[in-house]
Amino acid sequence: MKRFINSKSDIVTEALDGFLATTPNDKLARLDGYPHTKVIVRTDWNKSRVALVSGGGSGHEPAHAGFVGEGMLTAAVCGEVFASPSVDAVLSAIVAVSGEAGCLLIVKNYTGDRLNFGLAAERAKALGYKVEVVIVADDISIPGAHQPRGLAGTLFVHKVAGYLAARGALLEDVAQAARDAAACSYSIGLSLETCTVPGNAKDDYLKDNEAELGLGIHGEPGVTKIVFDTAAKLMRMVCDQLEKVVRSDKARYAAIINNLGAVPPLEMGILAHSLSKTALGGHIDIVIGPAHLMTSLDMNGFSVSIMELDAPRKKALLSDVEVSNWPGLREGGTVTISALPDIGSRKKYSFVANETVQAVVLAVCNRLVSAEGELNELDARTGDGDTGTTFGNAARYILSELEEMPFGDGADMCATLSDRLSQNMGGSSGVLMAILFAAASEAFHQKASWPSAIMAGVTRMMNYGGAKLGDRTMLDSLLPALEALLNGKSVSDAANAAREGADATAMMDQARAGRSAYVPSENLRGVTDPGAEAIALVFEEISTIV
Amino acid sequence: MKRFINSKSDIVTEALDGFLATTPNDKLARLDGYPHTKVIVRTDWNKSRVALVSGGGSGHEPAHAGFVGEGMLTAAVCGEVFASPSVDAVLSAIVAVSGEAGCLLIVKNYTGDRLNFGLAAERAKALGYKVEVVIVADDISIPGAHQPRGLAGTLFVHKVAGYLAARGALLEDVAQAARDAAACSYSIGLSLETCTVPGNAKDDYLKDNEAELGLGIHGEPGVTKIVFDTAAKLMRMVCDQLEKVVRSDKARYAAIINNLGAVPPLEMGILAHSLSKTALGGHIDIVIGPAHLMTSLDMNGFSVSIMELDAPRKKALLSDVEVSNWPGLREGGTVTISALPDIGSRKKYSFVANETVQAVVLAVCNRLVSAEGELNELDARTGDGDTGTTFGNAARYILSELEEMPFGDGADMCATLSDRLSQNMGGSSGVLMAILFAAASEAFHQKASWPSAIMAGVTRMMNYGGAKLGDRTMLDSLLPALEALLNGKSVSDAANAAREGADATAMMDQARAGRSAYVPSENLRGVTDPGAEAIALVFEEISTIV
Repeated sequence: MKRFINSKSDIVTEALDGFLATTPNDKLARLDGYPHTKVIVRTDWNKSRVALVSGGGSGHEPAHAGFVGEGMLTAAVCGEVFASPSVDAVLSAIVAVSGEAGCLLIVKNYTGDRLNFGLAAERAKALGYKVEVVIVADDISIPGAHQPRGLAGTLFVHKVAGYLAARGALLEDVAQAARDAAACSYSIGLSLETCTVPGNAKDDYLKDNEAELGLGIHGEPGVTKIVFDTAAKLMRMVCDQLEKVVRSDKARYAAIINNLGAVPPLEMGILAHSLSKTALGGHIDIVIGPAHLMTSLDMNGFSVSIMELDAPRKKALLSDVEVSNWPGLREGGTVTISALPDIGSRKKYSFVANETVQAVVLAVCNRLVSAEGELNELDARTGDGDTGTTFGNAARYILSELEEMPFGDGADMCATLSDRLSQNMGGSSGVLMAILFAAASEAFHQKASWPSAIMAGVTRMMNYGGAKLGDRTMLDSLLPALEALLNGKSVSDAANAAREGADATAMMDQARAGRSAYVPSENLRGVTDPGAEAIALVFEEISTIV
Repeated sequence: MKRFINSKSDIVTEALDGFLATTPNDKLARLDGYPHTKVIVRTDWNKSRVALVSGGGSGHEPAHAGFVGEGMLTAAVCGEVFASPSVDAVLSAIVAVSGEAGCLLIVKNYTGDRLNFGLAAERAKALGYKVEVVIVADDISIPGAHQPRGLAGTLFVHKVAGYLAARGALLEDVAQAARDAAACSYSIGLSLETCTVPGNAKDDYLKDNEAELGLGIHGEPGVTKIVFDTAAKLMRMVCDQLEKVVRSDKARYAAIINNLGAVPPLEMGILAHSLSKTALGGHIDIVIGPAHLMTSLDMNGFSVSIMELDAPRKKALLSDVEVSNWPGLREGGTVTISALPDIGSRKKYSFVANETVQAVVLAVCNRLVSAEGELNELDARTGDGDTGTTFGNAARYILSELEEMPFGDGADMCATLSDRLSQNMGGSSGVLMAILFAAASEAFHQKASWPSAIMAGVTRMMNYGGAKLGDRTMLDSLLPALEALLNGKSVSDAANAAREGADATAMMDQARAGRSAYVPSENLRGVTDPGAEAIALVFEEISTIV
């Protein structure tokens, strides 16, 4: 299986060092005990208050190292992937951070963790430390389970205990609050695929139409295999289980929406939305996540945890922490909707006379309509054969609105063309033409002539479109023609320049922009670019009038 | 493909509403333009400063909606997945947030985005707004590319421009700083698998030994197919490309380590560690991430972006923002190492005489050694057949140390047994026994008798071990025996109680804890639990002495 690891034996130490070197919380250190002892501690800790130590097997990042810092944990003891840390490692953590105020161990309910943290607690007591232990067993996937597993609800316990410890509460009070928080925390997970344990092949036992409900965080199969369904229905299955533990209609809860590893943020947003639509959603006052909090390696799934709120627990959750992996939380999650602003409905222009401009527009549009087949044919040799239709449709639309065109006002005329072409020409060409005429209109407001206004538009179009002369686009005929006009040459000269430019595109065997950028050279050779050809036809037509 | 979505047409609106309802930043709203106009705006915005608008296709979460807030963006315009938002949507965003100070559009370099944001900018100017546009083209995967793509380096531009805008800088100055930041930002991505575009089957074109380098963020194939390798070597390939743009030996950079979608935090930590070991790492003063910043749906890959630092850009990056998806950053990422505390080396005990205790220990150990085969046989009928060996090994070890045992001091004797058993018995049993004797030692310090001290130990062991009477473990003989002693009965009575308890386990066809918890009932029936049997043998042995 392809995963981003080096050697299996260095996974956890490298990941921890990568974390320590990049976490915005620069008040963290590791104990000098690699590889056996992997303990992350606060460097800004003076032992004057109750120390909180948590941990367990790795593979659940950012838990638990990511939650060390003022307001949450004092130390995290990390085992190898999915393996409990040793008694000595836990004891090292306790000794490193505990003072007179004592230490609370927060332990997820797995046999290995219970035993190793438990023995370390007994050893620490023998050394004279005051130690309390709270076991978190928030999994509700097996009704009446003898030993429910510890899942993401552990974060609630970290936060509640962390709040009290930071404020100098006594060990017994911190421990009691932690036990109470653990006792009213409930979690269940759902996944579409299992996780990949490093060094093992991925066990793809779920079929394409299967998911599983009631997961641990160590790659154990879920309690129930379910039929894959929409995000809303899968979320409802999770919430149906959690609703069973909701104590009363009036009970209020905090929720954790936990990414089990590999779900992209887009989908976590959909799941969060789906949660808000469930009956459980109506009981939730505070949401933490969606975020990676207690992962199970690369599991493509999520879990939801809830904790019943009372005033002290709510206050504890809402308190600020100096822990960069704590994602913050949201109280009362409604979506605020602001009024859509008026972006100007389609502006009405009225007819303003200018016989020459009107004649040019009429002739150009007619020429483009008549050239439709020819241009499509050119385009078909290198592309999808619709250039003629695109120009033709636009021309027909303009022809249908001639009676409302302000031919005599350059700025308004260009603004009209920009509006109409962006709405009716379609595709990139429509937007490019709309940009051209919008910028030309702006130029007219600063007293430009037609050629200089169009040139200003073309410059803006190049700016956004990214093409330039020689890229085998309409620019290859348009730019020479405009330059001729701006240099005082006649329209006929401009038409000749456009024609030369268009013909030259047939010699270009590489397109650098636009629709032909990915067409092989041999297909391009000898074929005139249809956009450049259209421009040449337009200038030839204008030269018969002006 | 199994993904957490509902209908394809609702992906983006649902994900945005899920985001809005859960983000800790509760000063966000969406414009009332669903489904066509998907624009996220600040509600705490008074238009007095330059507005920053960014956006593009969706599928890159948390970009860009997640970066709206004081110090970064003023609005994010979201298209459908991998599709540019419409001109009208962009224009709505500009109009919604722009005042006299004007608006800067930050656009990733994709044709659709350039054109739609570009035309919207022109339209906004026609409506009287001051608008500037900066295009981010930070992809370095195609040397000499005509139009490099916009990737995660866009975040640098958001942050630099956001800093200046928040401090009231003029539009032209914000735009210039944004252009300068874009001009010295460089990115490249690497992935092990492509992403799954909703509604399309996943195109698994990479073989098990392949990866690809030089990715866009829209599922385009990478520029180079490479051979899959360790995290360190893959990271080096990425950094080799970035090192080519490092301007001089003295040039200093900020780096973004971006999760492209589905890489679990554990592996991102390993990648961050690998990056710190490259030559490029020596040029990096500031690290942002690892984090999900600019994803490509569920792509199992990462990208690294760098931006050259000068004093103003560094200051801008380091400034605080009110944007919950901004992950913060780390300056000067070294790993701090604290001394491993002394957890007490193996305590030396010396011989203290007590003939009875010594005789009991000797007899018990000898009995366990002689029972090794019998106990293994019992265990083999329901488990892995090593209970006898586990007890036998422990007994042999204790026998080898009899000369140093403080038999005459209950507290020390129990502490010795706890130490020796945790180090030499192995497995859960060793830890459980160590806990038992550690707690018994503690009890002796409070003047307990042997039976009450052992009972205190057993209670603690049950606490951590999680088993109780009737769970088909050694407790089923141990507890009745201890209770007999504590009720003033003789050792012989206690032995009888232990024997009864052990024999009763053969009738229990369900184990609730310990090694037999997953053994089917039919295999358990008629078989005595070997742990309970060992305890019965021990008490029978003691009754011959005391």
